[in-house]
Amino acid sequence: MSKVVSSLNEIIDLLKIEDGMTISFHHHLRNGDYVLNMVLEALAQKGLKNLNVNASSVFDTHQPLIGHIQNGVVTGLEANYIGGVVGRAISEGVLAKPVTFRTHGGRPSDISKGTAPIDVAFIAAPTSDTMGNCTGKYGKSACGSLGYAFADAQYAKKVVVITDNLVPYPLTDFSIPEIYVDYVLEVDSIGNPAGIVSGTTKITRDPVGLVMAQYAAKAIQASGLLKNGMSFQTGAGGPSLAAAKFLMDIMLKEGVKGSFGLGGITKYMVDMMNAGCFESLLDVQCFDLDAVESIRTNPRHREISAMQYASPNAKSSAVDSLDVVILGATEIDTDFNVNVHTDSNGYIMGGSGGHSDTAAGAKMAMIIAPLTRARLSIVVDKVLCKSTPGNTIDVLVTQHGIAVNPLKPELALRFKDAGLPVCDIHHLKKVAEEITGVPKRIKLGDKTVANVIYRDGTLLDTIKSVR
Amino acid sequence: MSKVVSSLNEIIDLLKIEDGMTISFHHHLRNGDYVLNMVLEALAQKGLKNLNVNASSVFDTHQPLIGHIQNGVVTGLEANYIGGVVGRAISEGVLAKPVTFRTHGGRPSDISKGTAPIDVAFIAAPTSDTMGNCTGKYGKSACGSLGYAFADAQYAKKVVVITDNLVPYPLTDFSIPEIYVDYVLEVDSIGNPAGIVSGTTKITRDPVGLVMAQYAAKAIQASGLLKNGMSFQTGAGGPSLAAAKFLMDIMLKEGVKGSFGLGGITKYMVDMMNAGCFESLLDVQCFDLDAVESIRTNPRHREISAMQYASPNAKSSAVDSLDVVILGATEIDTDFNVNVHTDSNGYIMGGSGGHSDTAAGAKMAMIIAPLTRARLSIVVDKVLCKSTPGNTIDVLVTQHGIAVNPLKPELALRFKDAGLPVCDIHHLKKVAEEITGVPKRIKLGDKTVANVIYRDGTLLDTIKSVR
Repeated sequence: MSKVVSSLNEIIDLLKIEDGMTISFHHHLRNGDYVLNMVLEALAQKGLKNLNVNASSVFDTHQPLIGHIQNGVVTGLEANYIGGVVGRAISEGVLAKPVTFRTHGGRPSDISKGTAPIDVAFIAAPTSDTMGNCTGKYGKSACGSLGYAFADAQYAKKVVVITDNLVPYPLTDFSIPEIYVDYVLEVDSIGNPAGIVSGTTKITRDPVGLVMAQYAAKAIQASGLLKNGMSFQTGAGGPSLAAAKFLMDIMLKEGVKGSFGLGGITKYMVDMMNAGCFESLLDVQCFDLDAVESIRTNPRHREISAMQYASPNAKSSAVDSLDVVILGATEIDTDFNVNVHTDSNGYIMGGSGGHSDTAAGAKMAMIIAPLTRARLSIVVDKVLCKSTPGNTIDVLVTQHGIAVNPLKPELALRFKDAGLPVCDIHHLKKVAEEITGVPKRIKLGDKTVANVIYRDGTLLDTIKSVR
Repeated sequence: MSKVVSSLNEIIDLLKIEDGMTISFHHHLRNGDYVLNMVLEALAQKGLKNLNVNASSVFDTHQPLIGHIQNGVVTGLEANYIGGVVGRAISEGVLAKPVTFRTHGGRPSDISKGTAPIDVAFIAAPTSDTMGNCTGKYGKSACGSLGYAFADAQYAKKVVVITDNLVPYPLTDFSIPEIYVDYVLEVDSIGNPAGIVSGTTKITRDPVGLVMAQYAAKAIQASGLLKNGMSFQTGAGGPSLAAAKFLMDIMLKEGVKGSFGLGGITKYMVDMMNAGCFESLLDVQCFDLDAVESIRTNPRHREISAMQYASPNAKSSAVDSLDVVILGATEIDTDFNVNVHTDSNGYIMGGSGGHSDTAAGAKMAMIIAPLTRARLSIVVDKVLCKSTPGNTIDVLVTQHGIAVNPLKPELALRFKDAGLPVCDIHHLKKVAEEITGVPKRIKLGDKTVANVIYRDGTLLDTIKSVR
């Protein structure tokens, strides 16, 4: 018995894939992924139409998706993140139906609740055995964790594993077990290694970034949360990584031993664990080769599913035990609502990912962002898109000062006591506008091009077309 | 946030456990388990009645269950195996409603299909963190694999972890993730170590057992299945273990490198892997301390869920890839149907466990049994209970000869070519009856005390009361 089939065409026939079905993909191969394009091309060749694509994230390498939308092969799109290339096309109205944006925790939650059903899940697996036991830890296309693919495997009606490293049964160190897999397809390559782990953004050397990072680390130190057992997540942007580096210095100097590092994992988080800052790493996605090597070889670096990372439909998830998260923003408004979906012109170029999940779970959610960007204030009256509700954001760190959500007065006091430059968020807006001038409110179109679904499944905001 | 509660009473209140509910248990603590008795005692103290107990297995240590049945606390019982003490009470009619017997693969299958719903699962966990990430690998009550508990965790409405080794969050090397767990209770002890891993039966020294074991090993050698990549499961009985030892000698001598050893894992299977006979072990249950130590320290020794072990409702399970299994029998009839539920007097003292699952999956399912036991032939006209259908059994090995199922004529030819004493199963029955005399057919009662459900969910047989 073997589940290995010879081609995508054979799979399409065996699974009786039909017009209108929902197919799903995960994004651990990131901008190196070949699988989404490969599958859509095969489906298009077969003449299928009206497909709904549920991809945990869409990257620029998925540009061919635009053509499939234009010719009616794909008429629905659900994602937690959409990069600028496909995002621009969506904002310009290429898709008749609004995109459904979810969060990294909301997606598996909705899948498990049955509100985001999947007909066929395609799992890009850097290594699989002949029965579908598969992992991202080994193989030429190794990507480390397969965290986002677990819900697809568990709940999709049919599951196809696509691999470029087929090994004999059984693959003992599997991530996703054979019990969920219908077919296995071997191909020459599932991805471009240069794009899969494209290398974490380097720690910023920009003086503004370093100022913010210092403030952020000192704010964590002053928050009362920096103590033995602290858990931590940070984004992969330059200032966030610099903040992590400064935090590491403080933890080592003060002998603070944290419990776990969470999230998309970078070399810097691996270094922190190995230096003794954390007992363990809980990893839903690896961002670079150091993280891949670590998850393969260090038992304290553990792969977790997106359910376990952040699903509000789980009995609990790791974000519920998270102390501090450092996050980015394209805009933040004076109510602390954050936009990570669109740029300042309203074009889609991102998405929640785990932003609102970690903000909701963490004891302290900190935004780190330069006060102005491209001659615009990042602090605005009202964000173009509410990606993360303001009542879950505690702190905004900029190079011109730190604003604390009025919901957390004790935090502001602690920061002030530590000599940090605490100020009102309206003040930061004013400072920014003194530099940039008051921006003209941009005019968006009438068409809704995306619905932003909060992690609990409710509609949080809509995104309008750009005219 | 923590899920830790202070007592079973608190859990009963929090979960609003009511009369008539189904509660479940797993049996990795075997005859050392304290948890089933502890929970039932608390429920009885609370005055609950009419409970349905779904336990993957019931051991002699669970004798208090009889009292709970007599006083109406428990009125339903589902299990894959019931030891002689509780089995005798069942056979004597203590329970008004028939017991539901399933198999180790059929139980998670029925649970996942919703035909065996569970209200509250109680998971005995040798180590757990405060959010319910738990494992059997560590702690004073370490039992190794928690394979049978996965389906309970995943599908029960509510899940309680009971541990005697509570550790800080996160337990990185968890088996069952927090996403399924509602509450965690710490107690002094979840089990008696002497009973948890009571030590595997030693390899038989009985001359009859050694003759059978030699035949069995030679039959596997002659079967055509003994080649690189062979997979293997054996029971923990003395002759089965001796057969494994002889098989190991042959594999090492001939340089055969198998793929995986499966099942309940003993020291002997660990030795075979470490000697190079198998690439890996897939472990749903550890039988002894050597197996526990191995699964804790050797990445090639992998814990699998009961779904992955044997569930027919999985897309595939390990038994589907199994080449050879050696199994026991209390009776086998001339149609090769096997009884492992009752003794020759009709008293319940066992159950399918993985017997019929592995027999259905394996390329060659071999029964090894002495031709007579307690002055009775083990070959009979019709088994008292059909535990495993004859069409899934290929070979019966006794000290007086080897009978091959007529459905497998090529296997009989191979054995004959190898000089093995192949004979008709009717001949074996005759030989046995020449020794023991023709037994009087025992008379059973009219009351159905158990329904034997096959792995696919259908009724395979019923067990009648003993008068």
